[in-house]
Amino acid sequence: MEPFPPLPPPRRVLLGPGPSDVAPSVLQALARPTLGHLDPEFLRTMDETRAMLRAVFGTRNELTFPMSGTGSAGMETCFVNLVEPGDKVVVCTNGVFGTRMAEVARRARAEVTEVQREWGRALDLDQVRKEAPREAKLLAFVHAETSTGVLQDPGPLRELADELGALLLMDCVTSLGGLPVELDRWGIDAAYSGTQKCLSVPPGLAPISFSARAVQALEKRRTPVQSWYLDLGLVSSYWGSERAYHHTAPINMIYGLHEGLRLALEEGLEQRWQRHGQVAASFQKGLEDLGLELLVPAHERLAPLTAIRVPSGIDEARVRRYLLEHYSMEIGGGLGPLKGQIWRVGLMGSGATRSNLELCLSALGAALRDQGWASDRARG
Amino acid sequence: MEPFPPLPPPRRVLLGPGPSDVAPSVLQALARPTLGHLDPEFLRTMDETRAMLRAVFGTRNELTFPMSGTGSAGMETCFVNLVEPGDKVVVCTNGVFGTRMAEVARRARAEVTEVQREWGRALDLDQVRKEAPREAKLLAFVHAETSTGVLQDPGPLRELADELGALLLMDCVTSLGGLPVELDRWGIDAAYSGTQKCLSVPPGLAPISFSARAVQALEKRRTPVQSWYLDLGLVSSYWGSERAYHHTAPINMIYGLHEGLRLALEEGLEQRWQRHGQVAASFQKGLEDLGLELLVPAHERLAPLTAIRVPSGIDEARVRRYLLEHYSMEIGGGLGPLKGQIWRVGLMGSGATRSNLELCLSALGAALRDQGWASDRARG
Repeated sequence: MEPFPPLPPPRRVLLGPGPSDVAPSVLQALARPTLGHLDPEFLRTMDETRAMLRAVFGTRNELTFPMSGTGSAGMETCFVNLVEPGDKVVVCTNGVFGTRMAEVARRARAEVTEVQREWGRALDLDQVRKEAPREAKLLAFVHAETSTGVLQDPGPLRELADELGALLLMDCVTSLGGLPVELDRWGIDAAYSGTQKCLSVPPGLAPISFSARAVQALEKRRTPVQSWYLDLGLVSSYWGSERAYHHTAPINMIYGLHEGLRLALEEGLEQRWQRHGQVAASFQKGLEDLGLELLVPAHERLAPLTAIRVPSGIDEARVRRYLLEHYSMEIGGGLGPLKGQIWRVGLMGSGATRSNLELCLSALGAALRDQGWASDRARG
Repeated sequence: MEPFPPLPPPRRVLLGPGPSDVAPSVLQALARPTLGHLDPEFLRTMDETRAMLRAVFGTRNELTFPMSGTGSAGMETCFVNLVEPGDKVVVCTNGVFGTRMAEVARRARAEVTEVQREWGRALDLDQVRKEAPREAKLLAFVHAETSTGVLQDPGPLRELADELGALLLMDCVTSLGGLPVELDRWGIDAAYSGTQKCLSVPPGLAPISFSARAVQALEKRRTPVQSWYLDLGLVSSYWGSERAYHHTAPINMIYGLHEGLRLALEEGLEQRWQRHGQVAASFQKGLEDLGLELLVPAHERLAPLTAIRVPSGIDEARVRRYLLEHYSMEIGGGLGPLKGQIWRVGLMGSGATRSNLELCLSALGAALRDQGWASDRARG
């Protein structure tokens, strides 16, 4: 067959739930010359990447590195390694990603208790306490639910995990690099993330981190991990001092992550969290000034991702098409029961800027007026 | 912590078993602006990538796309989707990758019959026929064994699979794009590959292809696929016309694959196979002229990858260090029982050139002389 012409991807303003805007130096890093996965220079890059990842995760965990897949591969890594058939696992679900965790845990043959909470609200700790079985091995929750824009305070979950004698597993895909994440201070035993949210690196890697206690649980397994590709016993031997070949690491993606982590530390984590917070506060105020309603109550709201209710009479997909056509801007729609009900706007990583928030408000206003959105519903 | 300085990976001549030399336009493609995974422009890129992948695989299989992981994730995808607990699976092993297939199949709870053949030789079909159990669901083999440099003719295996009533699964990680691969003509039911060998794209994706018969087997499953991340029922819904969100695809890696496939088709597949063959023939002759012995008999030898026996008295790791230091050239060592026994030289993809083969012969000669290799052992 005749080959297609070379790609000309257009430049977008990426304000959906991820991938987020990628900094130019990260794109350049992807294009650096490929090295062998056992090249001494690349081994140094791996060590630097791990060290920076630990800083961003707020941990000293030895077992901290990126898995060779996207965020969902990170999720699966945590479950298939920590769970053995028949183990009791409690999954708190208040959105797509909690629901996905429960599904992944079931496929790892866990006995899953799913504590279901209304989508768009933080967890009800009393409910979790009531529904969780004794002797659960694992309590899993989502720190920043990408499908709804809800933030979950990890503190009370650590207490609950202690009561249950369970390991605590946290999804921090949408928080890492954009909100405080402090694995050691919070007592998180296992965490996974993605690169394409607040780290502003293209999708393709899943940073994970396991506490000493979680590593002990791996060592005590009586059955092999069902996934060879995600088996941390094997993957650790490559990322650790043995450098044993397991699979060929995605070299250029790791260059990109190295640069993304570098930028995060260069800015300073506190500074970066503040930037996300300030941009989100202005954006959320601007939305309310436009007369729009937010899905999540203010005290449970994420900074990096905001869910906006679609006003009645507005065609939500048409708004997204309008933004794409007129502003080359991407925002997200709702998932699952929230499909057609909300928009999701991410102001994440290098995309969390005053310019982007103002442009997005302006573009949203124009898209709504295009559908005859009455300006008198706007405040002021 | 203070961030590390930006990366300066050195430029290497990559002549190991992969990653291979990456063409400049592929590196540039990686650095193109990231799009959303549901962006209409990106959906077009996906369709183009699939169409080109089908051409390179020699297939019209609808289920043909890259999985979001490296080659080993492609291997695991094939087994976890095709195997249900208790299914009989025959794996032909004559190297690391056959052995790995057997391990992956066991973790998918198959009842595995491993037909073991000497490493460095093609399979013995009579032995496979004798040892394979009746009513096997799957017969799996490696087309181009990266650990030894052995080529396996698929024809007799198709016949045998027909006798057994089994699906035929082929690893073509090291052959795709460098040797004839004709899934439809050969009657292959499931195949997986990697990007970092003869396609000359950095590691990170695993192209797979399933025949209509293999898709039927997926549809007839009685149990869920144990991996959510690699579940082809779900992944197909994203790559197919539904465009249902499953996981966030590794956008920039797919740009790279798109460009790598473009280059392969621009050159022409026949032309490309010939180039690999000619370069390998000259290289293998040059090695014998140097007085070196090859692991694999001539008629079972791969073109893209050559295994060379380490002469007695030569420190094999010192040779590799010498090449790295003096030529910035990477070649591979042996794996498993062949560790310390062989070198593996890949002349793959854009690295399969006359210049590289001559440079490698020259460099190997120098590295051997550095250890007092007697020139009188060389021919001529």
